[in-house]
Amino acid sequence: MKKNVLVLLPAEARHREKLEAAGAGCCFVYSDADAVTEEQIQAANIILGQPNAAMLQASENLEWLQLASAGTDAYIVPGVLNQRTVLTNATGAYSKAVAEHAFALTLMLTKKLHLYRDEQRIKRWSDHGTVSSLSDSTVAVVGLGDIGRAYAHLVKAMGAYVIGVKRRGGNCPDCVDELVMTRDLDSVLPRADVVMSILPNTAETRYLYTDARFDLMKDSAVFINCGRGNAVSAEVLYRALSEHKIAAAGVDVTEEEPLPADSPLWELENLVITPHISGGFHLPETLERIVDIAAGNLAAFLASGELRNVVDFTTGYAK
Amino acid sequence: MKKNVLVLLPAEARHREKLEAAGAGCCFVYSDADAVTEEQIQAANIILGQPNAAMLQASENLEWLQLASAGTDAYIVPGVLNQRTVLTNATGAYSKAVAEHAFALTLMLTKKLHLYRDEQRIKRWSDHGTVSSLSDSTVAVVGLGDIGRAYAHLVKAMGAYVIGVKRRGGNCPDCVDELVMTRDLDSVLPRADVVMSILPNTAETRYLYTDARFDLMKDSAVFINCGRGNAVSAEVLYRALSEHKIAAAGVDVTEEEPLPADSPLWELENLVITPHISGGFHLPETLERIVDIAAGNLAAFLASGELRNVVDFTTGYAK
Repeated sequence: MKKNVLVLLPAEARHREKLEAAGAGCCFVYSDADAVTEEQIQAANIILGQPNAAMLQASENLEWLQLASAGTDAYIVPGVLNQRTVLTNATGAYSKAVAEHAFALTLMLTKKLHLYRDEQRIKRWSDHGTVSSLSDSTVAVVGLGDIGRAYAHLVKAMGAYVIGVKRRGGNCPDCVDELVMTRDLDSVLPRADVVMSILPNTAETRYLYTDARFDLMKDSAVFINCGRGNAVSAEVLYRALSEHKIAAAGVDVTEEEPLPADSPLWELENLVITPHISGGFHLPETLERIVDIAAGNLAAFLASGELRNVVDFTTGYAK
Repeated sequence: MKKNVLVLLPAEARHREKLEAAGAGCCFVYSDADAVTEEQIQAANIILGQPNAAMLQASENLEWLQLASAGTDAYIVPGVLNQRTVLTNATGAYSKAVAEHAFALTLMLTKKLHLYRDEQRIKRWSDHGTVSSLSDSTVAVVGLGDIGRAYAHLVKAMGAYVIGVKRRGGNCPDCVDELVMTRDLDSVLPRADVVMSILPNTAETRYLYTDARFDLMKDSAVFINCGRGNAVSAEVLYRALSEHKIAAAGVDVTEEEPLPADSPLWELENLVITPHISGGFHLPETLERIVDIAAGNLAAFLASGELRNVVDFTTGYAK
């Protein structure tokens, strides 16, 4: 029987060609993720892209879901997928986009460019004093998946000393000077000039950055979060910045998204907020990478071969 | 006879020690460049630092002036120094500070962080669409002195294709993929995704970036100027940005400094202005490097040896 493949990616002609070549014999339906109907979702044997988790309802027809995201938290909640559905994510597709965004935030803050932008708005030519160089800095990269490693590579190229922090031990990649286990995070925080957090949303990472952990950081430290917003609560982040426990932060994610208009975070001079745009399809290359993962997995799935990036439901990570 | 050495650098104890060791037997006077008197200037045989050019009055006593800056334009004007005064600059001291600032501006603009900062000020969570990566970009570095090469090294490490543009031919440094002469600049501009200008103020560089040259650039191009403000007039820069001849610009220098409060440049959304702070002593390491150059040159001067960074009065460049 022909497999129904529902594609919810913004696929252009060249992407469709690539997917249909990999899925020869399948029946392809293309839709916008926002416009897709419940019937289309329920009829699909394979979904490539990001359906609204509430619409999946543990569909019996769904054999495999290839996400366009690296984050899997909305899909591993019991009841969303049936137990036989294989879930794969797009780990690897976002490394360039998100790592470069986090790197740009890091440089903006260490060079005080956010303060100069504010001065420009009031037409003031005013000096904000000394800045620092990553070449003299220790950078802690918390979460050493593909994005974390790509970021580590960038800061290392500028001369930083890089401490990689990860759940499990293993080999130390070339872009990391020192590897530390997440359970020893507290020993790293007092040493870091930059703490870059790129963690998925799991039970272990939720509210990982507590008041006590910000107290451990240098008062000159810069904190970057491009992982999931709930790694730090809005209140804890506000206290850390308003009480100058650290110098500045840049976040692409917030505990509640969109950040509510009445959040006091908006007005913090020493916080730069971007609206969860570091990933997505903001860097055109990301879509190419996702289509490559999806096409490769589609060919493997139809040949009963091994899929890339299969998600472990108990951890939320690709195995 | 003891030489009078006037030090106008913000020298701390360790800097004084280093200078006095190099200048054993000299009589040292320390002053703030803003507080120094005409008598002190006129009495000096050697000045280390940045005196007000108007106070020099071709002093007959002044044998050597070691500038703290890389730019020499104020001091090679006839009548400022007497013809026997040796002038040396601090080429080399600023490469890290200025190159990193220019690099941070480049990333801020290519990742649209200036627009997100503006949105933050009005508490708006709003997506500004696609961004680009330096790894897919061609970067023209116009001016390939020590700062230009340091910047080239940074963008090259992110994967950019780097075109170096310089006055004279010569060897192509490792951080540069292609070397082009300044007279062929017009062939480079249509190819560049980023044009980074780091030129001194000379007769050849004044108003180098004309309307016609901005017309040659890609409409997606980012222009960075961390050299001298008069490489582009305020009017030409305003037209380039307001008419969207290019996508955005970041400038640490302007034709008139401070930028007048009524300049229309302040309000351009696609321009980021910093108040000539990329150099100076904003990165603490810069002062260390200047003191090292000054101390090395002082020892050489007293031993009638060869000085580093002697400025050619006809070009304004270190020989």
